[in-house]
Amino acid sequence: MSRTVYYVAASLDGFIATPDHSLDWLLTRHIDEAGMLGPAAFVEGVGAIAMGAATYEWIRRHQDTWDYTVPTWVFTHRDLAGVDGAEITFTSAPVADVHAAMVGVADGRDVWVMGGGELAGAFADEGLLDEVAVAYAPVTLGSGAPLLPRRLELRLTEAARNGEFSCVRYDVVHPG
Amino acid sequence: MSRTVYYVAASLDGFIATPDHSLDWLLTRHIDEAGMLGPAAFVEGVGAIAMGAATYEWIRRHQDTWDYTVPTWVFTHRDLAGVDGAEITFTSAPVADVHAAMVGVADGRDVWVMGGGELAGAFADEGLLDEVAVAYAPVTLGSGAPLLPRRLELRLTEAARNGEFSCVRYDVVHPG
Repeated sequence: MSRTVYYVAASLDGFIATPDHSLDWLLTRHIDEAGMLGPAAFVEGVGAIAMGAATYEWIRRHQDTWDYTVPTWVFTHRDLAGVDGAEITFTSAPVADVHAAMVGVADGRDVWVMGGGELAGAFADEGLLDEVAVAYAPVTLGSGAPLLPRRLELRLTEAARNGEFSCVRYDVVHPG
Repeated sequence: MSRTVYYVAASLDGFIATPDHSLDWLLTRHIDEAGMLGPAAFVEGVGAIAMGAATYEWIRRHQDTWDYTVPTWVFTHRDLAGVDGAEITFTSAPVADVHAAMVGVADGRDVWVMGGGELAGAFADEGLLDEVAVAYAPVTLGSGAPLLPRRLELRLTEAARNGEFSCVRYDVVHPG
């Protein structure tokens, strides 16, 4: 069954990017692909991707290629340029409607909410977020983009070191 | 040799208290004393405690007893009431001077920086913080008192689950 997972890297103090949108503190770190939350292994289980406009623009600005082979939805109210050969849908539709379409496309594989925190929160607000998976880099940032600006109750399912990262997985506990 | 350790519980998203200073999200959780970062076992290795005024006042407001047997320094510019029978020093002296006194008293045991985050940051600013140890409770808070409002480079030394908590220890990497 398809699960909707917010899988993200963060600093120890809960930021996913510096105030100037840098990820230098993250991209220099070692993580073992065969270990817990190894990125390539995680992506193999994913059938659809959701991201916010800031995340999309960061990828376009910093990466020459589009590395994702599964259909991707970008939540935005702006008119953004797509990528040749990539299956990208820009949408300002309600999260629940888009989620239903994503689950249909994912066909049993997981829906990956890539970020940012506000988009993950919007999924959680609708009761559509099943899991939070965080790879903590060995750094505090002190300020920046918040991991998940909501109050959510979680249940720890897995915790392990992977390379320089401390990795954790949580199920979201839905109220009532 | 005495090490100076910021040992604290936090939410997944890096807050150590809610905006209204509640710890309800924390105190209901299970942690195994025999597991990693079990509180009583940690305290046994501690020879001196540092805390900020807000932490001190929270303890006084919420606990009938003073549970710490080692000398404690409270950093404050205000005139706070002590506790009968407890060895508490209120100080507004420079962190480095107080730290030297604490290490002397600790006599090889560790100095525990209990919090808050700003006090831990003040120790780090002076290059006096050796370790950051965090027990993450299974919750996001979305806002509140920050874990450690500084940019610090760390090195993961230990990561393990303990009860409902994900526990991590880091050495502080001093620049240069």
